[in-house]
Amino acid sequence: MLGLMQDWPLTVDKILTHAAQWHSHREVVTRSVEGPIVRTTWGEIHGRAKRFSNALLDLGIEPGDRVATLAWNSARHIEAWYGIMGIGAVCHTLNPRLFTDQLCYIINHAQDKVIITDLTFLPMLAENRHRMPSVTRIIVLSDEDHVAKTGVGSLLASESLIAGQSADCVWGEFDENTACGLCYTSGTTGNPKGVLYSHRSNFLHTLSTLQHDVMGLSVTDTVLAVVPMFHANAWGLTFSCPAVGSRLVMPGPKMDGASILELLETEKVTFSAAVPTVWQMLLAHLKATGERLTTLKRVVIGGSAVPEAIVRAFHDDYGVEVVQAWGMTETSPLGTLSTPTPEVAALPFDDQVPFKLKQGRPPLGVELALTDDAGEAIAQDGVTFGRLKIKGPFVVGEYFRGEGGVILDEAGFFDTGDVATIDPSGYMQITDRAKDVIKSGGEWISSIEIENMAASHPKALMAAVIGVAHPKWDERPLLLVKLRDGESATTAEFMAHLEGKIARWWMPDEVLFVDEIPLGATGKIDKKLIRTRFAGHVLPTARAEAV
Amino acid sequence: MLGLMQDWPLTVDKILTHAAQWHSHREVVTRSVEGPIVRTTWGEIHGRAKRFSNALLDLGIEPGDRVATLAWNSARHIEAWYGIMGIGAVCHTLNPRLFTDQLCYIINHAQDKVIITDLTFLPMLAENRHRMPSVTRIIVLSDEDHVAKTGVGSLLASESLIAGQSADCVWGEFDENTACGLCYTSGTTGNPKGVLYSHRSNFLHTLSTLQHDVMGLSVTDTVLAVVPMFHANAWGLTFSCPAVGSRLVMPGPKMDGASILELLETEKVTFSAAVPTVWQMLLAHLKATGERLTTLKRVVIGGSAVPEAIVRAFHDDYGVEVVQAWGMTETSPLGTLSTPTPEVAALPFDDQVPFKLKQGRPPLGVELALTDDAGEAIAQDGVTFGRLKIKGPFVVGEYFRGEGGVILDEAGFFDTGDVATIDPSGYMQITDRAKDVIKSGGEWISSIEIENMAASHPKALMAAVIGVAHPKWDERPLLLVKLRDGESATTAEFMAHLEGKIARWWMPDEVLFVDEIPLGATGKIDKKLIRTRFAGHVLPTARAEAV
Repeated sequence: MLGLMQDWPLTVDKILTHAAQWHSHREVVTRSVEGPIVRTTWGEIHGRAKRFSNALLDLGIEPGDRVATLAWNSARHIEAWYGIMGIGAVCHTLNPRLFTDQLCYIINHAQDKVIITDLTFLPMLAENRHRMPSVTRIIVLSDEDHVAKTGVGSLLASESLIAGQSADCVWGEFDENTACGLCYTSGTTGNPKGVLYSHRSNFLHTLSTLQHDVMGLSVTDTVLAVVPMFHANAWGLTFSCPAVGSRLVMPGPKMDGASILELLETEKVTFSAAVPTVWQMLLAHLKATGERLTTLKRVVIGGSAVPEAIVRAFHDDYGVEVVQAWGMTETSPLGTLSTPTPEVAALPFDDQVPFKLKQGRPPLGVELALTDDAGEAIAQDGVTFGRLKIKGPFVVGEYFRGEGGVILDEAGFFDTGDVATIDPSGYMQITDRAKDVIKSGGEWISSIEIENMAASHPKALMAAVIGVAHPKWDERPLLLVKLRDGESATTAEFMAHLEGKIARWWMPDEVLFVDEIPLGATGKIDKKLIRTRFAGHVLPTARAEAV
Repeated sequence: MLGLMQDWPLTVDKILTHAAQWHSHREVVTRSVEGPIVRTTWGEIHGRAKRFSNALLDLGIEPGDRVATLAWNSARHIEAWYGIMGIGAVCHTLNPRLFTDQLCYIINHAQDKVIITDLTFLPMLAENRHRMPSVTRIIVLSDEDHVAKTGVGSLLASESLIAGQSADCVWGEFDENTACGLCYTSGTTGNPKGVLYSHRSNFLHTLSTLQHDVMGLSVTDTVLAVVPMFHANAWGLTFSCPAVGSRLVMPGPKMDGASILELLETEKVTFSAAVPTVWQMLLAHLKATGERLTTLKRVVIGGSAVPEAIVRAFHDDYGVEVVQAWGMTETSPLGTLSTPTPEVAALPFDDQVPFKLKQGRPPLGVELALTDDAGEAIAQDGVTFGRLKIKGPFVVGEYFRGEGGVILDEAGFFDTGDVATIDPSGYMQITDRAKDVIKSGGEWISSIEIENMAASHPKALMAAVIGVAHPKWDERPLLLVKLRDGESATTAEFMAHLEGKIARWWMPDEVLFVDEIPLGATGKIDKKLIRTRFAGHVLPTARAEAV
C-alpha cells in the first residue's frame, strides 16, 4: 500500500524559488572578477537565472545537455548554475587548477556544448578551443565592454544574453532523479572520472547539511563561501544558503589573507568554509597585522586534514569554533563532520582537540562501514583501521559513461580508497590512503603515521614511507628521510626516535637519507613515483631471509 | 538523462538503525504507565523494535496491514511504531481523547487488525471490543503480571512477545512511497478523515524539521516530548530525536505541571514541545511553588495560538525561548515556525513579541499561498487575509479510502480551511477559520478579531461573532456577549469599546447579551451551533433595508 501524500519532486530549482519567495531581499555580495564589490539579492538572482535559462534554450540547449562552468565564486556563477539546472541541463563544473590537457580531456569526455566562464580564463580557452570540438559557444560572465576589451572573438557576454530575455521560464517538473550536475575527480590513477549528481541527490544533500549538527546554517548567518563552486559543489553552500535564506558573500578570484579578512570584517561574516591552506594564509595575515575577527563564529574546514595549530589559533586567539569536515566529490561532498557529542562538548578544550582533529561523525543519510580486505567488518574501537566504505542517497552509484565499471560492493557500499578508524563515540579518522597502507604478515601498517612521527624528528625536513616487497612478510616499511640543510643523521637516531611511539612491528626495516622526496601536482608526496623508483629494492631484512 | 547516484530509499527504519549505530548508548527515559521512571537506549529500542516486528509477523501481519496504537508517549510505544513500520505495515495512531463512538468508527474505517495499547485504555477496549470486528488481537505495552491483574481476557503482553523473538529481522527494502502511518483528523464537519503518511513523507519531514531555523535539534539536546505520539506524530520528535541522537524523555500519562517540572529538572531537559495548555499548567505550578527552570532553553508551542502571557513568562521569568509552530495532521504536521529573521532578532524583546505571536515562516519543502475565494493570489502585506493553502512532499494528497474526494486545487495546493495573512518578512498569521469569516460586500471580516476585542471589555466573560444574512451586504457581523456574573451593559458601551480598534465597516450590526455561548468538545466556541440557532435572525440593519 502506498501513502497518499503529495507528489513533490525534489528538484533544486525549488531551492532558489523558495529563496526568492521568502528571502527575496537578502543580499548576495561578490568580489567581482572585474574588481569592485557588487551586491544583488536572492530575488534578483532568481529572475536573472530564469533569463539565463531562456538564453540557453535559445542557444539550443536541451534537457541532458552538458553546460560547463569554469568560473570563480560569484552571484553570476550561481545564476548560471540555476539557469542550467532549472531546465534539466547538466551543470558541469570545471576546475581551473587542472592542467590544460586534463581540462580538454574532461570537456571532450563530457561533450560539453557550452562553456560559461570568467574573463580570467579566456586566454587559456582561446588558445585551446580547437581541442574542444563539442563546444559550440563560450559565454563570459561579464558585460559587452569587458568582453570586447579581451580581443577574443566569438564570445557571448552573459549580461547581454540576460538583458534580452524574459524572466518567465518553467523550471523543474521532471523526474527528481534527472541529472543536474557533473564533476570530475582528478584521480591519482587512470583517467578523471565524472560524478553525475541528480536533483534528488543535491536536494537531499542540502537538507542533510542544514541539520544543526552538520553545517547548521540559519537565516541569521552571513556565509563566506571560500570553497570553490568547482570543488565538489562548494560543499553545497550554493544550495544550502538560499534554502534557509542566509546572506552569502562570494570572494571571486581573491583568496589571499588580506582579501578574505576584508570580506569577513566589512560584510560581518558569521560562518565560512574553506580548505586548510586558506585559513593558514588568513591566520598568518592576522598575526602579521595584529588585526581581529569581530563577527566570525564558526569555520568548517575540509579537503585535507586540519592541522592542530589552526584549531588552536582560531579558538585561543579569535574565539572561532573549528568544525572539521570530510567528504569527496563522490559524496556530494559532505560525509562526516566533527561537531561535538555531549560527552566531547563537556570536556575542557584541550581534551576536545583530539576529536576536532578527527574527520567526524556521519549524519542521517550517510552510512559508513570499515572492513578488512576480505570485506569483513572490523572493530570500531578507534584503533583498528580498515577500508572506509560509504553508502547513501548522495553517494555515487557509478561514474559517468561507465568509467571504472562496477564501483559498489555487494552491500551497495562505495570504497572511498581511504583507510580509517572509527572510535566508540562515532568519530571517524582517516589514517591513510588504502593504496599506501603496508601489508605485513596479513596486518596493516599506516604509512602516514610512521611518516608523521619520523618528520617530527628535529633534523628531518620531510619523510616518506612506502611498503617494499618482502619474501616472508609480503611487505615491510621503508622510511625515506630528507634532512634539513646542513644536517646529518644515522639510521639509529631515527629508529630511537620512533621507538615506543609506534608498534614494534611497524618499525621500518630500513632508513634511507635522500636528497629529494617527490611531490605531486597537489603538493602531496608522490608515493606512486617513489614506489616505481624503489620497485626492485631489496630490504636488508629480505636479504637476510634469502641467505 | 538521469543522475548516477545511489538508490537509497527514504524509509523511516533507517532513522532508528542510524541511531542504533551512532548513538547506541544515548538514553530514552520514560515515566511509565506502571509508575516508575524507566531507562533504555536507542540501541536497545532498535533491538526490541526488531523483535516486535517478528512478533507482528508471527501474528500474520502483512505489508499494508493497519496496526493501531492507543498509547501514551513511552519508549515501548516507539518500539511498537518502528516494529510496525519497519516491515511495511501501517501504524495507525488512535487518539484516546476522542469519544468512544469516534474511535470505533475510525478503527472500523481503517480496518485495524491489531491494537497495541496501554493498561490505561483496557476497560474502554474490553467494553467495546465487539464493535471492532476487524481487530484480531490486542497487545498491551506491559508485562504478564500487569496484564493479568487487569482481569481482561485474550490479551497479549508486549514484554512476553518481545522476549520470545529474535532481533534479526529485515526492515525496509521497499518503495519509499510505501504507507507507514495513518492518523485521522477530527474534522468539525463530516466523518473523520485519515491521512496516510508514506515513509518518504515522514523522512523528508524529519530532515526539514532538523534545520537550525525549524526545530534545530542536536545530539547535545535532551528533549521532553510532551506532544503526544497520537497527535500528528508528536510533531515528528520520535523520528527527529533518533535521527540526530538526541536524548529523549517521555512523560507517559502525566502532563500536569508538577510532573512535567519534575522531568524537566531531574532529566536536565534542554528542549520541549507541547500545546499551550500544558505550558499554562507548568507556569501556574512554577508561580505557585516558586521553583525554577535550570536547564530548559527552548520550547516549541503549537496546536492553537500561543497567548502572549506564555511568551513573556517564559522569557522574563525563566529565560526560555518560545518558538510558535503551526501545522495540521494533513501537513505531518510542521508547516511554519516563528524562528527569527535577522531583522526580528535585532529588535528589542518587546518588539519581537508580535512576531512570536504569529504562526511563523515556512521552511524549504513547504509552499504557502494566500488566495481569495476565486483562487487569485492576494497581497502578502500582513494585513490582507485570504485562504491559506499549502503544498509540499509531506502535505496530504488525498484522504484514506477517498474520503472527501479531490482535495487539491489545480495548482496542487491543499486548502487548510484557515484564513491568514503573510507579512513582508514572511511571517504567516492565522486570522480565522475560513467558514467563520464574514463576507460583507465582497470583502472579508475576521470574526475572531472582533471577538477578541469584544472579550477584552472588562464586563465581558466571553464573546462570539458570526455572520448573519443581510439583503444588501450578503453577511454582516452579529456580536454575542456573555457578561461576567452580576454585570449589566448596553450595546452602546460595547460599540464604544470597539470603536477605533477595528475597521469601521467591521463594526457589528447588532450586539446581543446572552446567558450562554456554546462550546464544542475541544473547548472552542461552537460557531456551527450558534449559526444554526440564529439561522432566521433578522438584523436591525436588514429590517431597515427591507422597509
